[in-house]
Amino acid sequence: MLGLQELSADEISAVLDTAANFKEVSTRSIKKVPPLRGKVVVNLFFEPSTRTRISFELAASRLSADVVNFEKSTSSAVKGETLKDTARNIEKMGVDIVVVRHSAPGAPHRLAQVLGASVINAGDGAHEHPTQALLDMFTMREHKGSLEGLTVAIVGDIGHSRVARSNIWGLRKLGAHVILIGPPTLVPGGFRELGVEVSYKLDDVIERCDVINMLRIQLERQQSGLFPSLREYSRLFGLNRERMSRAKSDVLIMHPGPMNRGVEIAPQVADGPHSVILEQVENGLAVRMAVMYLVTRGR
Amino acid sequence: MLGLQELSADEISAVLDTAANFKEVSTRSIKKVPPLRGKVVVNLFFEPSTRTRISFELAASRLSADVVNFEKSTSSAVKGETLKDTARNIEKMGVDIVVVRHSAPGAPHRLAQVLGASVINAGDGAHEHPTQALLDMFTMREHKGSLEGLTVAIVGDIGHSRVARSNIWGLRKLGAHVILIGPPTLVPGGFRELGVEVSYKLDDVIERCDVINMLRIQLERQQSGLFPSLREYSRLFGLNRERMSRAKSDVLIMHPGPMNRGVEIAPQVADGPHSVILEQVENGLAVRMAVMYLVTRGR
Amino acid sequence: MLGLQELSADEISAVLDTAANFKEVSTRSIKKVPPLRGKVVVNLFFEPSTRTRISFELAASRLSADVVNFEKSTSSAVKGETLKDTARNIEKMGVDIVVVRHSAPGAPHRLAQVLGASVINAGDGAHEHPTQALLDMFTMREHKGSLEGLTVAIVGDIGHSRVARSNIWGLRKLGAHVILIGPPTLVPGGFRELGVEVSYKLDDVIERCDVINMLRIQLERQQSGLFPSLREYSRLFGLNRERMSRAKSDVLIMHPGPMNRGVEIAPQVADGPHSVILEQVENGLAVRMAVMYLVTRGR
Repeated sequence: MLGLQELSADEISAVLDTAANFKEVSTRSIKKVPPLRGKVVVNLFFEPSTRTRISFELAASRLSADVVNFEKSTSSAVKGETLKDTARNIEKMGVDIVVVRHSAPGAPHRLAQVLGASVINAGDGAHEHPTQALLDMFTMREHKGSLEGLTVAIVGDIGHSRVARSNIWGLRKLGAHVILIGPPTLVPGGFRELGVEVSYKLDDVIERCDVINMLRIQLERQQSGLFPSLREYSRLFGLNRERMSRAKSDVLIMHPGPMNRGVEIAPQVADGPHSVILEQVENGLAVRMAVMYLVTRGR
Repeated sequence: MLGLQELSADEISAVLDTAANFKEVSTRSIKKVPPLRGKVVVNLFFEPSTRTRISFELAASRLSADVVNFEKSTSSAVKGETLKDTARNIEKMGVDIVVVRHSAPGAPHRLAQVLGASVINAGDGAHEHPTQALLDMFTMREHKGSLEGLTVAIVGDIGHSRVARSNIWGLRKLGAHVILIGPPTLVPGGFRELGVEVSYKLDDVIERCDVINMLRIQLERQQSGLFPSLREYSRLFGLNRERMSRAKSDVLIMHPGPMNRGVEIAPQVADGPHSVILEQVENGLAVRMAVMYLVTRGR
Repeated sequence: MLGLQELSADEISAVLDTAANFKEVSTRSIKKVPPLRGKVVVNLFFEPSTRTRISFELAASRLSADVVNFEKSTSSAVKGETLKDTARNIEKMGVDIVVVRHSAPGAPHRLAQVLGASVINAGDGAHEHPTQALLDMFTMREHKGSLEGLTVAIVGDIGHSRVARSNIWGLRKLGAHVILIGPPTLVPGGFRELGVEVSYKLDDVIERCDVINMLRIQLERQQSGLFPSLREYSRLFGLNRERMSRAKSDVLIMHPGPMNRGVEIAPQVADGPHSVILEQVENGLAVRMAVMYLVTRGR
């Protein structure tokens, strides 16, 4: 599971269907099923990410796998060993699934070439974050029945976003119409080649959207001069109550988290009736269980 | 389980009784019982604490729960997400118990208002550390039969101590007499309103004590000018052999750890016949098993 | 399991035999056996080491033990507590095996004196790293049938290497001939008293070697002036293709990892037909399972 670019529509749907079955497990009193008993999952995180790591960790342990966490700060990565050597070493300890997050785009793909274990991409640079897109799509499908014909807006720093890229690949394959929205400095026009619409004004398109996926603004990006000020960004692209009044009555509001409340999303919207942000987190677990189940069954 | 201030004497006794049952589990060859199988415990630690975290982790796994650790340094707390959002997100992953340590007094209480999961306070600022007080009381009860009528001294930096506060609430409710001891700068007289005695001279009261609970002196507090020097503190309030010779023959010496040997407690006393310091650690596990068992059974 | 200096040839062979049985477990679909179910293993690491920690963690969980990780950075070691107090506290939580890594030679031995739990040395300063030597010897034995009469070269910074020391003790006891190789500044002549040969020129002895164990060069050692330059070191002691052409046709190339590719070992050699470097990692797990199994059975 390296990215949604590589998957077919049928394969994506198969993951979503499997996730639907696993979602029920998390509602049980005993939240555990046996398919990965005696298997080993390693979380190989070269960028810190507590949420994603915990989500994979809980998904694995809900499938009865053993999980080991490896984070860069305490690793021999510090000692200058190559990523490939680190991964091959860890694999040799009898690991079945390697969940990898790395700042270099394509790192999971390179690992998949040298490892016998299954590799799951948990985010590689600004390239892909496939399980995040899958959980976004799962949440949309759960509410809307199908993605076919839906209009999905993705708002924010599209150029630097692996979440946006994976969503674009997946949503297009399942027949959704995608609108990318943000200031021109953050939304490269070249994305149009992927078959998506580009808009620089949220107010122009909000009425047409079935789903609005608000990306997190990286506050550290401000210094780079890519956008004038947080206040200005918030005024033009932030999702607040006033703006929501012009959206469809059944619009879904999503956010991959962590949120900057009051910047890209107002607290009233984040906690409001259209928000499915906490459902996304819940669905993330089911989607990750499905992915881990399918990659081990595939071999 | 947010604090001992909120609990009745009966509720506290119920925890201690349950802990007595669980203590036996840790003596078995196979140290595991099934009540929390398939449940998920998250250690949400915004302040580092290896001991307390490991104690909760082992207690949970002894009850067959799955445990996930979340520590601030590697968390999205760094990214400016609110505590509430972090906790609600983690809860959505199907978490049953959230064990939280936070530097802000009342943080666990605020989480309990927004979470469906059970919240256990593992220390909130200088406010409460209820499982520490429960394990202290459990240890006293095991040796003395009952807390009713016992005289318990707590010595040290009372003003900044959550351990002291939780002990005061718990001990008073179960009928013990509490004496707070330390330099006036560290023992605010206002504590008398909680029904305790205050003394600025350990030597004045040591003969009356059934239990002496020595708090850890935070060496970094020295700079603040709250006490003159470590040597001076040690001379006036340190528990050494000479001072012990004036204590009761069956006095219990306690310390929540980690100890500054030679400062608040002399090595000969820490390792001496009256010391129950290592028993406290052992009892901590039983008390935390009891608390986790009771909070999940309560729902 | 404190060091190979203390073990007899028979005891070492018993560990290797037991490891041979456990190696098969890691090839199963369900990689888990029950002997340590309900036992608790603590990884007490005062020096960071992801690989060794993960290897012990997976070995323990493959034996069905519960594992808790304790690393210095987040520990009360920071607060100035003594090693002995830390270890005794953790033991009191019902721990069966303490795996300890510490920068002070002899730290595991001192812990073993005060703890009731079994202590396994995972590296103490420049003193011993017994499980690494055992996995090295296991790998040699698997390929060569016996260690008796083998000529084993250890190349690198012998003086600072716990891996070298443990290998010397173990290999000598099982009848191998050991040659220590490196620049005179890194190979103290006093090692000859341990019954080994010392050489300052790899080219002089390479033809006689059945096994060549390349140690990692600590790049930070350069500043100390103990060797002139990496290029010079690599030219004189690095294992490259040209040098390999003069080695025995069935020579085994080993490295404890992490490798500095292009410094002490050329990539073509590390990944070449004589390299058993990844097998070492795999065997490490079997050896650590064996050690944990034997230390608990011994009590």
